[in-house]
Amino acid sequence: MHILISNDDGYTAPGLEVLAASLSKFADVTVFAPEVNHSGASNSLTLNRPLMVKEAANGFVYVNGTPSDCVHVALTGVLKQRPDLVVSGINNGANMGDDTLYSGTVAAATEAYLFGIPAIAFSLTGRAWFGLDQAAEIAVQIVKQQIAQPIQAPVLLNVNIPSLAGGQIKGTKVTRLGKRHPSQPVMAAQTPYGEPVYWIGPAGEAVDASEGTDFAAIADGYVSITPLRLDLTHYDQLPSLSAWAQSL
Amino acid sequence: MHILISNDDGYTAPGLEVLAASLSKFADVTVFAPEVNHSGASNSLTLNRPLMVKEAANGFVYVNGTPSDCVHVALTGVLKQRPDLVVSGINNGANMGDDTLYSGTVAAATEAYLFGIPAIAFSLTGRAWFGLDQAAEIAVQIVKQQIAQPIQAPVLLNVNIPSLAGGQIKGTKVTRLGKRHPSQPVMAAQTPYGEPVYWIGPAGEAVDASEGTDFAAIADGYVSITPLRLDLTHYDQLPSLSAWAQSL
Amino acid sequence: MHILISNDDGYTAPGLEVLAASLSKFADVTVFAPEVNHSGASNSLTLNRPLMVKEAANGFVYVNGTPSDCVHVALTGVLKQRPDLVVSGINNGANMGDDTLYSGTVAAATEAYLFGIPAIAFSLTGRAWFGLDQAAEIAVQIVKQQIAQPIQAPVLLNVNIPSLAGGQIKGTKVTRLGKRHPSQPVMAAQTPYGEPVYWIGPAGEAVDASEGTDFAAIADGYVSITPLRLDLTHYDQLPSLSAWAQSL
Amino acid sequence: MHILISNDDGYTAPGLEVLAASLSKFADVTVFAPEVNHSGASNSLTLNRPLMVKEAANGFVYVNGTPSDCVHVALTGVLKQRPDLVVSGINNGANMGDDTLYSGTVAAATEAYLFGIPAIAFSLTGRAWFGLDQAAEIAVQIVKQQIAQPIQAPVLLNVNIPSLAGGQIKGTKVTRLGKRHPSQPVMAAQTPYGEPVYWIGPAGEAVDASEGTDFAAIADGYVSITPLRLDLTHYDQLPSLSAWAQSL
Repeated sequence: MHILISNDDGYTAPGLEVLAASLSKFADVTVFAPEVNHSGASNSLTLNRPLMVKEAANGFVYVNGTPSDCVHVALTGVLKQRPDLVVSGINNGANMGDDTLYSGTVAAATEAYLFGIPAIAFSLTGRAWFGLDQAAEIAVQIVKQQIAQPIQAPVLLNVNIPSLAGGQIKGTKVTRLGKRHPSQPVMAAQTPYGEPVYWIGPAGEAVDASEGTDFAAIADGYVSITPLRLDLTHYDQLPSLSAWAQSL
Repeated sequence: MHILISNDDGYTAPGLEVLAASLSKFADVTVFAPEVNHSGASNSLTLNRPLMVKEAANGFVYVNGTPSDCVHVALTGVLKQRPDLVVSGINNGANMGDDTLYSGTVAAATEAYLFGIPAIAFSLTGRAWFGLDQAAEIAVQIVKQQIAQPIQAPVLLNVNIPSLAGGQIKGTKVTRLGKRHPSQPVMAAQTPYGEPVYWIGPAGEAVDASEGTDFAAIADGYVSITPLRLDLTHYDQLPSLSAWAQSL
Repeated sequence: MHILISNDDGYTAPGLEVLAASLSKFADVTVFAPEVNHSGASNSLTLNRPLMVKEAANGFVYVNGTPSDCVHVALTGVLKQRPDLVVSGINNGANMGDDTLYSGTVAAATEAYLFGIPAIAFSLTGRAWFGLDQAAEIAVQIVKQQIAQPIQAPVLLNVNIPSLAGGQIKGTKVTRLGKRHPSQPVMAAQTPYGEPVYWIGPAGEAVDASEGTDFAAIADGYVSITPLRLDLTHYDQLPSLSAWAQSL
Repeated sequence: MHILISNDDGYTAPGLEVLAASLSKFADVTVFAPEVNHSGASNSLTLNRPLMVKEAANGFVYVNGTPSDCVHVALTGVLKQRPDLVVSGINNGANMGDDTLYSGTVAAATEAYLFGIPAIAFSLTGRAWFGLDQAAEIAVQIVKQQIAQPIQAPVLLNVNIPSLAGGQIKGTKVTRLGKRHPSQPVMAAQTPYGEPVYWIGPAGEAVDASEGTDFAAIADGYVSITPLRLDLTHYDQLPSLSAWAQSL
């Protein structure tokens, strides 16, 4: 069992270190992770320059690129052996609802899924790594379950784990993605020379956190597992849009 | 009618200039585009630094960030007036099948769609801008159709226009996204110091270009319009995954 | 007479456009300039990725790198013809005293000087390009003087031109670099998530603006021309340091 | 005795770790180093975005900026206590002759010198860190000498240490900077899409490696110490240039 691990917080992130250490107890583990933090990277690929692939003292491989770059170069030539599973994380903060689209953590897993390899993204909902060891145990359980009973379909799982004290997690729920309100307004600021600059604002509050969503599961103290698909075609709109396009 | 235009090729790209000129004949047009090329940017947002928003001599606004950044800052505070429509492009090259996930052109439109604004991404399938003027005319037709008969649903359209000589385009097809083979292997190279580096390889050939796909429409000489959705939940897998997760 | 022009404000900067237009009236002009602003770039060279060299619609060549990169690639292979002279600017803002060390404008000229080509850096002391046309006329005079009576030595000139209304400039002074106070403190700020960030503060006020300095010349309404050298050895300290090092 | 340490290879570089460990045996040591490698950064300062200043697990502070940024933010507000000495390195590779102008290692020391703090840059001439421990011992000797007998002048020392086996170093020489031939031509390459790109070529061979230069000292197996100055005015050219400028 060979597992490739990546993340978006960078190769020195505690969430990555703990995940790699936990999985290496029962599997061959290879780490390809970004040299620096790439939160918000989405599925971006670096196309205008080549990537450097280096090995840190602890054996982790780091790449001066995005999470998608890391998994992409590993799978398309740098890694000699095709991994059996790709996991990403454990991320510093939740990746729920619309966040999923922007998440570099999810994107690293997505890249593997597009190459036909089962992939799981793990995120810890709180900041400051509270509950990280417990989250790693849960990640191990889920990975072992996938090894013991492989899901019989291409699979991309988005797992969020609540930052709770040991023993406080109530169980696991399989969920759909919730929805957020639009993100908060840009935060205007100034350079020392008086020029205006704008920070992207934080994500909006959940607007659909109803029963069955990832938001609801986390709020109730459960681990949330959401299966993802990447077929972006809006099939339901095909008939009406065909009618609309007649007039063109 | 106020239209916000963005792209991923950067604010000096011919595809953007022609599109803006064409749409400004019948609508108020504002351009927020990246300062430099961001092909492959996907939905990435810049979270680790603030963005500079400047105006070029021709009135185009450029941002030192990604396509998603451009539309995001416009809609969350920099633009005083909420636009009625957001269009992106015209991109230098196709955005079909799995490319859609990585495309900055599509991402700029996606950002608007997530804010509840109708959004259309336009791409010209060939390189070197062959057929650009014709493509702009087609973009105008589609935009006018959306203004005259607004689609009665949240709408995100991915439009690919074939690079054909004038009059050679056969019509318009509403399509689903096709699929590509995995991308080509990384291209290994060396720095002048002998260190290895790796370029991300080109996209793979189409593997599902069957009737009804965007690949098929373009190959047959039609404009392809694909409606997109961004709900990434894999609803079909929810039941089986729930059973699977019982054992956790 | 073939003149290579670069700058650090980027290839779309008005100071570059005006300078290129003025010099092209009597010389063959080639522009290699950075794609985006690189103020503060100093002599930095890009060593971890290759550079892209592209041509804009107006014939200017732009490079996705630093000012030094632009001149370096032009002189070491991209430009077929070795230029007779390299000029840099006209910069948006002064480059006087200690600023010279950090200036990308001066660095572009320095790069040429190191390759044995006479080089002149031009800066306009005010912001917002006030007095730009007059500055271009003065730049033309200095360039023509160098062509007519070439300085009989390797030459790197740092020229600052005051932002004054037409006819208000009193003449030209050959100066030494003044000194500044240390720069102002960092400006602390916060991300939208409450994390601290720090902006580099503005340059300090002049501490040596005495007669004979560039600061004094500009304050008095003169163009300042300072010859620069790049031999960083502190010859005066060699004897005492040799004694000191005996004890090692 | 409080010593601030920086470098240009990044905060995880072995040369930095060994230097910090060695100096912390007899002094209070603070590290402010770049997050990633910035070889070739020269004195560049980051002016278009704010800097993030974070602490690694080992207590080293890292900054997402250049070597000059690191020392600048430390000295202008982030560090509570003004250091007594700033050292930079130990660099992976020589910084001799004209390299000095481009070196980020030297630039970090330069930044301190400009703030009136004694500063020393250390470089190990070979690659792959051969002889690093010996180099650290030599760095300790030089630092202790500066503490015991402070040089009675503003001081910026550029120290190069040969990569030799233990005991093979013959002694120390105080030197002037040599000169190099112009650097090698750009190395042309191609993207996977066939677009040309250009790598900056390696530095040229020494052209002035005569007795008394840093090149000669290193070639002969000695540690080279070169005192640097940053007054870029070419005083010798002032008279002739004044005559020349009369005609303007």
